[in-house]
Amino acid sequence: MGYTVAVVGATGAVGTRMIQQLEQSTLPIDKVRLLSSSRSAGKVLKYKGQDVTVELTTEDSFEGVDIALFSAGGSVSAKFAPYAVKAGAVVVDNTSYFRQNPDVPLVVPEVNAHALDAHNGIIACPNCSTIQMMVALEPVRQKWGLSRIIVSTYQAVSGAGQSAINETLREIKEVVNDGVEPKDVHADILPCGGDKKHFPIAFNALAQIDVFTDNDYTYEEMKMTNETKKIMEEPDLPVSATCVRVPVLFSHSEAVYIETKEVAPIEEVKATIAAFPGAVLEDDVANQVYPQAANAVGKRETFVGRIRKDLDVENGIHMWVVSDNLLKGAAWNSVQIAETLHERGLVHPTKELKFELK
Amino acid sequence: MGYTVAVVGATGAVGTRMIQQLEQSTLPIDKVRLLSSSRSAGKVLKYKGQDVTVELTTEDSFEGVDIALFSAGGSVSAKFAPYAVKAGAVVVDNTSYFRQNPDVPLVVPEVNAHALDAHNGIIACPNCSTIQMMVALEPVRQKWGLSRIIVSTYQAVSGAGQSAINETLREIKEVVNDGVEPKDVHADILPCGGDKKHFPIAFNALAQIDVFTDNDYTYEEMKMTNETKKIMEEPDLPVSATCVRVPVLFSHSEAVYIETKEVAPIEEVKATIAAFPGAVLEDDVANQVYPQAANAVGKRETFVGRIRKDLDVENGIHMWVVSDNLLKGAAWNSVQIAETLHERGLVHPTKELKFELK
Repeated sequence: MGYTVAVVGATGAVGTRMIQQLEQSTLPIDKVRLLSSSRSAGKVLKYKGQDVTVELTTEDSFEGVDIALFSAGGSVSAKFAPYAVKAGAVVVDNTSYFRQNPDVPLVVPEVNAHALDAHNGIIACPNCSTIQMMVALEPVRQKWGLSRIIVSTYQAVSGAGQSAINETLREIKEVVNDGVEPKDVHADILPCGGDKKHFPIAFNALAQIDVFTDNDYTYEEMKMTNETKKIMEEPDLPVSATCVRVPVLFSHSEAVYIETKEVAPIEEVKATIAAFPGAVLEDDVANQVYPQAANAVGKRETFVGRIRKDLDVENGIHMWVVSDNLLKGAAWNSVQIAETLHERGLVHPTKELKFELK
Repeated sequence: MGYTVAVVGATGAVGTRMIQQLEQSTLPIDKVRLLSSSRSAGKVLKYKGQDVTVELTTEDSFEGVDIALFSAGGSVSAKFAPYAVKAGAVVVDNTSYFRQNPDVPLVVPEVNAHALDAHNGIIACPNCSTIQMMVALEPVRQKWGLSRIIVSTYQAVSGAGQSAINETLREIKEVVNDGVEPKDVHADILPCGGDKKHFPIAFNALAQIDVFTDNDYTYEEMKMTNETKKIMEEPDLPVSATCVRVPVLFSHSEAVYIETKEVAPIEEVKATIAAFPGAVLEDDVANQVYPQAANAVGKRETFVGRIRKDLDVENGIHMWVVSDNLLKGAAWNSVQIAETLHERGLVHPTKELKFELK
């Protein structure tokens, strides 16, 4: 009586962690099917100690699948997610392709699980950098309201996939072992595979994640702006981001500045965040306790600290928000959405197909 | 008829670069004397190809010295800078010890060279993270005024000295060559030598630079706030900072948000910054041109890009500011102050000693 769960993009940095999160999940799972492109099909991965052969993703891959987790790039989701829905599966899509589609809920379960109730077969998992900020800010928004957000990110290279992790390690070894100057290291992938030029990330900081849009912000920055508005259901909330890649492999950090509608006493802000599901308060500067990327790796929670009043603006608050971008930022949030769908009785075939079959 | 210039802390990360900057300086220099603690005294360094033996710093070290550049820690400046002034030297101090002293000008030559005219023998060089922000923002302040600054920094480990560089390289090698998890790497120095706990910086981001103050900001963050007000002569300008160490060896990056008193058209802001001495505009996102830490290493300029309007606030502007923290942030700004003192005829013995001899 359990589910058949498919993972599309099973061999990637997020896909392999989706498998781990499914292994640890409370979902009743009968069978896991692993799907990929032709490049990885035929590989053998483990699920709960059993060999599972990776299959090629086709339009016909989803017969008998109840839940399909997609993390193989926007074009794969665009092509195959509608076929999965047509075959009766509920899709949790970790790419940006459907996130702004009005027929698709964009969900961080702690924040807006209610949005799942109206799903049409596809649920979008937000961008990694957005998710952890939502976990930190939603408790503040609920209690005092938010009137603006400014965020600067310190993002791990794993957000750009396994190939970016490999590139970063190769570059760093060239610098520390071979004495190459960071500026002279060759790069093929970062700051983003889809753009023309590539720059070293070893001992560098790249103020570009994803390609640039017409307004001189990057898509990554606009994802933080637009996804925040949709998840919080606050279309007029001002949100501006600067998204920066740093030479960290796992876990994103964020310097977040907010202004609240009502003045929020800092000790109450700390207590309110500490009490919010999925958030962990790490804030005791007298004992040098604050969130660190290295400590968040492998954990599902979002860690929040350095919470302090702005020095001049009465309703201004600064904080430091850290989470494993591959877990809460992707694999765990996706599996958590699936768990929440199950708990709410929402894992069922969709009657009317609202998405184009390509 | 040239100067005798002393470098105190000559063997450190900044001191060695002070020697390089003096070699390239327009100052008329007859003789360079290199001073240090007993740990490094007796070492032999080069100045313009000639051997110079490093001497122990004592109260009597400054006889015959015209200009003394200090970068050996606050306690060394506190102890010996007044003796240097008493002996007739003009001191350019790169530590934080004298920066908020009302008898001491705090100078970024492009911004407030006029403050040198009233010196009393000691001139303070601001904190590295402050200096580059001043070069980027002063042209904007002069033309449109500033009503607030929020900055998040991405600071290189070299700001904590040569030992922090060595520690970072050792940690990173342990991760990439020996497979140690970043969280399990041993640390002795960072986030700051003077605090109780030490954390790995390899593949991490540490939201602590210097120790914490009573208001839950770090001293580094309060330096950015207080030094900005003093340099810009704007005691009421709101400035709040989040200072973060990242695994970069050289060059600080900063995500700077400002609000101007008058609305500033972005293209004019770019042109105004490009025309300011010491600032270089690198801003052509269509061609992926923006400042990068790796490219700024070894250069004296401050690089500014990603200049764009806030998405909601009419007078809000975001930018990305990068400079070599050891050059413009320390060694070059100190030598540049010395050059400016020379140009203004201000290298002379001070009549009244305003600083306590300890």
